[in-house]
Amino acid sequence: MTAGDTMSAAPAVSAEQAAREQQLTDRVVASFADAPDDRLRQLMQSLTRHLHAFVREVRLTEEEWRRAVEFLTAVGAVTDERRQEFILLSDVLGASMQTVTVGNEAHRDATQATVFGPFFVADAPAVEAGGDIAGGAGGQPCWVEGTVRDTGGAPVAGARIEVWEADEDGLYDVQHGDGRTAGRAHLFTDDEGRYAFWALTPTPYPIPHDGPVGALLAATGRSPMRAGHLHFMVTASGLRTLVTHIFVRGDELLDRDAVFGVLPSLVKDFEVCPPGTETPDGRDLSSSEWSRVRFDIVLAPQRA
Amino acid sequence: MTAGDTMSAAPAVSAEQAAREQQLTDRVVASFADAPDDRLRQLMQSLTRHLHAFVREVRLTEEEWRRAVEFLTAVGAVTDERRQEFILLSDVLGASMQTVTVGNEAHRDATQATVFGPFFVADAPAVEAGGDIAGGAGGQPCWVEGTVRDTGGAPVAGARIEVWEADEDGLYDVQHGDGRTAGRAHLFTDDEGRYAFWALTPTPYPIPHDGPVGALLAATGRSPMRAGHLHFMVTASGLRTLVTHIFVRGDELLDRDAVFGVLPSLVKDFEVCPPGTETPDGRDLSSSEWSRVRFDIVLAPQRA
Repeated sequence: MTAGDTMSAAPAVSAEQAAREQQLTDRVVASFADAPDDRLRQLMQSLTRHLHAFVREVRLTEEEWRRAVEFLTAVGAVTDERRQEFILLSDVLGASMQTVTVGNEAHRDATQATVFGPFFVADAPAVEAGGDIAGGAGGQPCWVEGTVRDTGGAPVAGARIEVWEADEDGLYDVQHGDGRTAGRAHLFTDDEGRYAFWALTPTPYPIPHDGPVGALLAATGRSPMRAGHLHFMVTASGLRTLVTHIFVRGDELLDRDAVFGVLPSLVKDFEVCPPGTETPDGRDLSSSEWSRVRFDIVLAPQRA
Repeated sequence: MTAGDTMSAAPAVSAEQAAREQQLTDRVVASFADAPDDRLRQLMQSLTRHLHAFVREVRLTEEEWRRAVEFLTAVGAVTDERRQEFILLSDVLGASMQTVTVGNEAHRDATQATVFGPFFVADAPAVEAGGDIAGGAGGQPCWVEGTVRDTGGAPVAGARIEVWEADEDGLYDVQHGDGRTAGRAHLFTDDEGRYAFWALTPTPYPIPHDGPVGALLAATGRSPMRAGHLHFMVTASGLRTLVTHIFVRGDELLDRDAVFGVLPSLVKDFEVCPPGTETPDGRDLSSSEWSRVRFDIVLAPQRA
């Protein structure tokens, strides 16, 4: 079985057995036939077919089924307002990124989206243009600047940019568990669609791996490490909301990101500046190395 | 799209887009390549292929993905030691029954298994041969008797039989939430493999439908009703553990059981006896209608 196979063949079973299994699948598919919502019917019937095809292909045992139920129960038990283990699970299975990939198809001329991740928090504080989103989080200062435009090239004024990232310890503020808000903020583009802020140079970190998803990664010999990245969510009236990251060119983890979120177009050059290099806004970094990066964003039109 | 389709064709996408999506699937499949356990690698790689095939086939949107995460989160939130919503979800998708169907293949000469359901409780009380498992639960008395044999026809002495069922209100004891134990017990076969007990004639009831799985059924126009049934779990040394039900011939719900658990071989004739009919053990039911059913059980050899 190679990685390139779309679907491996089911083990040989008798024609009678195969018919019995297919009849069951057909009965479940048919049970959704009267769903009043066409799209929900399509989703549930397709899900049923693929779920049953999986069970039949691997000849799932009842013990394995029981362990799957236990695993999902554990994922549910560890999930709360601060921790979203179902998103992590979707992320490490590449289901989140496949959904994003499907969605990117229609927006070829726009900046590509990537995974949302589990660490977004609504109502992050506002910063002014050129402000610092670190909010006390530790790490190497990083000047981030760019523009937001539509696919016609027109600048988008007043676009709302949410940014969030982990600190140099590899933790988002919410993971510290002490109520702090740091490494996240929102700001708006100016009349010419420009934005700029201070953040931290992104560094690699592990996704939370002390829960059932971490146990799954360990059991399958996978690393929980993500390539360093800075999250963006950009919203503007009449345009498609963009959820994406930027990554650091040269990061060794770019080709083995635990959630498969890296796209070549999102890998950016972070210019490292020695201590004392003049900063764009006069901030005194005479004793600290810092970096700068440019990220010009293009938003697609909203779907009809 | 008919119910008979194993897999419907994916919508047309450009070759470039299809390649992008397939590359992502391949990367996720490859990420499991070093899993030390062969079976776990097979399971995760197959799951990945089918999950991605689903996302690609339906062109899942990010909003739908978000709603799926919310749905699973709600399933997790309602699950506790007394309520297993993940099993219910697996049941209504027919995944439980498909797993059982796959497992039944190797045991053609034995009594067929069906779904486990979410209401089994370990350490149910013991009853003597001929005892009453109702434990105060309301309903029509039902005399259940039969034998346990192996596939060679030899009686199995000392087989442990766990039985559990809902009361006439359609609730299992654990659903009453008051700590009662009723409608469940265990007993053992005698030296000739025989067993007998009093229970309640099974009646149809809805699966718990006040949670997210119930909302899914309602949204898709499906009924939560199950055909009436009595649960059995039979264990004996050296033989395959059998988890099954018996159903009542004539039940209108036999062909639309909410969890697809009905198999023709498990539908039994429940003989209804007018009040005053002599009972097998002399129990006084002079003022109550009662029923009787025979269920002869054959256990398969344990897997090698």
